[in-house]
Amino acid sequence: MEDQTIQITQSHSKKQKPNSEQLEFGRIFTDHMFIMDYTVEKGWYDPRIVPYQPITLDPAAMIFHYGQTVFEGLKAYKTKENKVLLFRPEMNMARLNLSNERLCIPRIDEDFVLKALIKLIEMEKDWIPTAEGTSLYIRPFIISTEPYLGVAASTSYKLMIILSPVGSYYKEGIHPVKIFVEREYVRAVAGGTGKAKTAGNYASSLKAQEVSEKQGYSQVLWLDGIEKRYIEEVGSMNIFFKINGEVVTPELNGSILAGVTRDSVISLLKYWGIPVSERKISIDEIYDSYKNGSLEEIFGTGTAAVISPVGELNWEGEKMDINNGETGPLSQKLYNTLTNLQNGTEPDPFDWTLEVK
Amino acid sequence: MEDQTIQITQSHSKKQKPNSEQLEFGRIFTDHMFIMDYTVEKGWYDPRIVPYQPITLDPAAMIFHYGQTVFEGLKAYKTKENKVLLFRPEMNMARLNLSNERLCIPRIDEDFVLKALIKLIEMEKDWIPTAEGTSLYIRPFIISTEPYLGVAASTSYKLMIILSPVGSYYKEGIHPVKIFVEREYVRAVAGGTGKAKTAGNYASSLKAQEVSEKQGYSQVLWLDGIEKRYIEEVGSMNIFFKINGEVVTPELNGSILAGVTRDSVISLLKYWGIPVSERKISIDEIYDSYKNGSLEEIFGTGTAAVISPVGELNWEGEKMDINNGETGPLSQKLYNTLTNLQNGTEPDPFDWTLEVK
Repeated sequence: MEDQTIQITQSHSKKQKPNSEQLEFGRIFTDHMFIMDYTVEKGWYDPRIVPYQPITLDPAAMIFHYGQTVFEGLKAYKTKENKVLLFRPEMNMARLNLSNERLCIPRIDEDFVLKALIKLIEMEKDWIPTAEGTSLYIRPFIISTEPYLGVAASTSYKLMIILSPVGSYYKEGIHPVKIFVEREYVRAVAGGTGKAKTAGNYASSLKAQEVSEKQGYSQVLWLDGIEKRYIEEVGSMNIFFKINGEVVTPELNGSILAGVTRDSVISLLKYWGIPVSERKISIDEIYDSYKNGSLEEIFGTGTAAVISPVGELNWEGEKMDINNGETGPLSQKLYNTLTNLQNGTEPDPFDWTLEVK
Repeated sequence: MEDQTIQITQSHSKKQKPNSEQLEFGRIFTDHMFIMDYTVEKGWYDPRIVPYQPITLDPAAMIFHYGQTVFEGLKAYKTKENKVLLFRPEMNMARLNLSNERLCIPRIDEDFVLKALIKLIEMEKDWIPTAEGTSLYIRPFIISTEPYLGVAASTSYKLMIILSPVGSYYKEGIHPVKIFVEREYVRAVAGGTGKAKTAGNYASSLKAQEVSEKQGYSQVLWLDGIEKRYIEEVGSMNIFFKINGEVVTPELNGSILAGVTRDSVISLLKYWGIPVSERKISIDEIYDSYKNGSLEEIFGTGTAAVISPVGELNWEGEKMDINNGETGPLSQKLYNTLTNLQNGTEPDPFDWTLEVK
């Protein structure tokens, strides 16, 4: 695998690049993409960068029926000095293999796929937007392609990487969102696929999202599938609570995703000397801390939004105003520091950024 | 919708039909397929029957990332008199809409899609195999197609119907299988997508299947995701137990699929005057009934295999031999009756079959 050459086919008609100030999330794609195939006989083979183009699959391809697929999300940033930075990309490669393991998808060579990703970014570096809050979103994903209707692991796959210049995940930038505590629907359960980054987790989340939006909430807070009492995630982000000076976040229990931003936030808090712990947190505990005035801030963490402060939590009709509905000082500091590290405005004491040369 | 005309494009190069005696499950597809598109503006539109062909999608199409998709499975049979029969197809159409509701996919017009399915079967009736245990498997499915990386319901979809001449799901025909009672992995949980026929349920089941196969078991028995005590399904089938003359099957609790074969078996048992009940069943109860000698038969039910007798159940190393590892008389009678009804060998007192004219 290490020795495989990446074949490159240049696109002849370059697309017009979008206005950096008006970027949405995930709607525009660059001129090229990376693609690589797998069969049981050949392993991963034919790595290539080609013009961004539709893919053609048999209608019986297993991805359409049994959903055997995994993905990742990370970003490339351009610094003021025109350097291109990635943020902890080796964590995404490692997590892709953890997801593969759960979904019975063959392992990738993490170093090779990262090399391919870097090569693609090099070719597309003019697509990285530079306006405040913008970046180039990177989506590696693997789909099962065998045309077969039996329920079994596919014998063939495609790994692809596509790139999308993006603005802030929330159009309004960092600002507090209203969250509905979900009691009916469940995102994942221990023994399920909650810790894997796979399509089914997102498909199953749409219904609760739809119901909560109708009630004026932008995301749901997921509780555990067993007791519906312990906090898991918010929307498709990890979640943190600042209570009486201490920051707490749900532990990695097998049903929540091990977020790269989550891990970075924990490291930053420790670096700053702010107490932080990973443990079980019940919704009752959050309500009690709200009632006794010790609940200071709530925020979600994820690659797309980085830090997403929570301004209101609705638990069975009980509305908790968090920090008067405003972005708390810790949320703001984490957002500023993380985005500054990511786009190279601040020195990186953690060696988290990787320069694409 | 009702008034839409189905455009037909005939295939010019007809494929060779397979030998009826050597058919596998779900590997060969017929000459034509049905396809229909959806956008928010147009609703479902452009219903058409076209030559079976690959489909082309943007790499950012949401099906590849967030798995918003549903499907159905049913069969067409050819009688000795060359009539073509479908088995309770209106139940599949209704269930497709139940799945759509859970997955935030727009409803279909059940009558219209059934009409389209029948039209397709008419065109492909020469593909229906006639050897013992064979049929034409019908796979309607809907995929989300919007090229967008935000987590939200897609604004565009494709509904397709493809057809596959199939032999018995198990190569050996009706014969008892060995089942492993799964304790680590979970298929679904209340509040999740267990009752919907959607890709994620099948993707999440592969790992347990892989582990159990390594130990010599062909399927797993799923327990509930909360207490890991109550029986849910076996592999991708519903499950029945005959204990001391009574037949019991797990009740429709929201996390198991409401199988058409399950419903038909319950109706048949009632028709025959055999006591049958739908209720919670714990694995302890099954073990106790095995120990005291009252456990007579176990079988799975599903469209693909119809009736699949269980010959051994392994619960944490405790091996229960069911009916001496042989197909029980009730399993055999249900298999014979159902397949006879389906292929028109026996009169149908339930009006379950629909003739395609």
